[in-house]
Amino acid sequence: MSQLRRDPIVGRWVVIDNDHPLVPKDFSKEDHSLHQKATCPFCPGRENRTPPEVDAIRLNGATGISDWKLRTVPNKFPALLKEEVMEKKALGMFDVISGHGAHEVVIETNDHAKQMADFSVSEMILVLNQYQRRYKVLAADHAFKYIVIFKNFGTSAGATIEHSHSQVIALPMVPKSVLEEIQGAEVYHSAHGGCVFCSMLQQEYQDRDRLISENNTFVSFCPFAPRYAFETWIMPKEHQAHFVDLDEGGIGDLAHQLLDMLNRMKRCLSNPSYNFYLHTAPIKYGRANCYHWHIEIIPKLTRSIGFEWGTGLQIVPTFPHEAARFLRDS
Amino acid sequence: MSQLRRDPIVGRWVVIDNDHPLVPKDFSKEDHSLHQKATCPFCPGRENRTPPEVDAIRLNGATGISDWKLRTVPNKFPALLKEEVMEKKALGMFDVISGHGAHEVVIETNDHAKQMADFSVSEMILVLNQYQRRYKVLAADHAFKYIVIFKNFGTSAGATIEHSHSQVIALPMVPKSVLEEIQGAEVYHSAHGGCVFCSMLQQEYQDRDRLISENNTFVSFCPFAPRYAFETWIMPKEHQAHFVDLDEGGIGDLAHQLLDMLNRMKRCLSNPSYNFYLHTAPIKYGRANCYHWHIEIIPKLTRSIGFEWGTGLQIVPTFPHEAARFLRDS
Repeated sequence: MSQLRRDPIVGRWVVIDNDHPLVPKDFSKEDHSLHQKATCPFCPGRENRTPPEVDAIRLNGATGISDWKLRTVPNKFPALLKEEVMEKKALGMFDVISGHGAHEVVIETNDHAKQMADFSVSEMILVLNQYQRRYKVLAADHAFKYIVIFKNFGTSAGATIEHSHSQVIALPMVPKSVLEEIQGAEVYHSAHGGCVFCSMLQQEYQDRDRLISENNTFVSFCPFAPRYAFETWIMPKEHQAHFVDLDEGGIGDLAHQLLDMLNRMKRCLSNPSYNFYLHTAPIKYGRANCYHWHIEIIPKLTRSIGFEWGTGLQIVPTFPHEAARFLRDS
Repeated sequence: MSQLRRDPIVGRWVVIDNDHPLVPKDFSKEDHSLHQKATCPFCPGRENRTPPEVDAIRLNGATGISDWKLRTVPNKFPALLKEEVMEKKALGMFDVISGHGAHEVVIETNDHAKQMADFSVSEMILVLNQYQRRYKVLAADHAFKYIVIFKNFGTSAGATIEHSHSQVIALPMVPKSVLEEIQGAEVYHSAHGGCVFCSMLQQEYQDRDRLISENNTFVSFCPFAPRYAFETWIMPKEHQAHFVDLDEGGIGDLAHQLLDMLNRMKRCLSNPSYNFYLHTAPIKYGRANCYHWHIEIIPKLTRSIGFEWGTGLQIVPTFPHEAARFLRDS
């Protein structure tokens, strides 16, 4: 039995074809054993192997160069450079911006062997606080319109360095996928007078079968029209457009909720590689009642968890209520 | 040096970061040697291993079941079924359509060992004619709004069966990526009074450095803001919205042009796996002056040819004029 489902935010149709749904034997067998420790540029004592840090957390009054708990450095091979002068121009009918931007790496822990799923709550809070700090610094540069924050864990999710880290990228324009969410949310707001993400949450609570877990501030669920099997969103229950506006209590609750999801994936899906992306409103976005920030987590499983079928149509092998049941109850 | 470039049709920004551009040692080392011949369900003599054919070309008056040159069969594991009754419904705020559609496989040759790049012009014409024939049959079903035609060659491009074949999918809705092109083209038409694809071709002829080859009817080029390195488009020089309207002379010219491109990729990029997609207007699309059909070819190279960087921003390691020079002159 297959079904075409339409994402209510961006209008994307996906095909859910569960004739051969993913089962535990399809889950990750990926080897995350460590091979880079001897030369890891992200380990304490090798600070000279990265560009000079732009931020660091040293606890208990420590000041030594290697006494950090968390450290943020510019990417050694940045695709975009903060130093480059921003220049917009038209080449005939084409629009071009020079590579002005920032590309930073948050080294989340001084422990080479520690996966984010195994962080303590206080370690996770350090990371989330750092995301907010870097956001604020970069957002103050008027050239930037959007800050992308994401994490790749594991080789098959694109992580080339195994030491746990996330990436922060500042852009002189808003990426298309965010613009699409915003445009969809604005159209919905004009038609229905409310936030499409809030309506989605109401529907999730009404249907219940795609919910995974929740705490005071956050809820995790598998969205109705996912692009990938076992795609999971973490969303604040109350409307909020900007991640950077999350207060201290909220950061604590997010640390718990993100750890809960990463641990469920580790336990239920055999510790897969994954990506997560923070979707937040553009810097200085004016219609805060339309957009609702959230985190999207995509685990990589051994069998294809979804693929593009010709012109952008996604095929997904598992219904989200089945994925949610598995992540909830296993 | 990196550059942000905006696709003039759909508005997607991509980052071209050629600090480490692809060089020949990065090109495909993929092994396309054949392993499935003994049991291939697409070989003559094993017609009972596929669902009954819906079309076939038997030359010179042959009538035997195995005397075909080309054969089209329903996919044995279709994600969408023509027999399923189409039902649209709303589940709360979500839109759903039952899995009504068609999913066919064009077995392009009776020769298990022949890659499409090695087809004769007359063999390629048979394939292109078949695309048009299947399009016409499926487009006559009023439930269908769009026909997707595409080909995967090689394991890393998603081909699970090595015998040369393409896929034809009929959908009860228009996929988002096509809708985006159409919306972008309609906006451009309203603003500038012409076809954005025609303007793009003018610009390509003016700039010249992204052109690869051409004949009377078609031109191949690497688009200004590609999603992937060595992405190539084949486009009719004269405005035409629907591939199915291409006449007999045009089909001959397209056969030459597609063979030219596949051979250039085979020679210059070490016979990579690839996908190609036919982008054509939706069935019964009313604004034929806005849309311009074309073929997009994406080779798969060993090193990443582009990746999504957080929320949908594509990073591409090679400028299209360098890719075009390589495909033109090597």
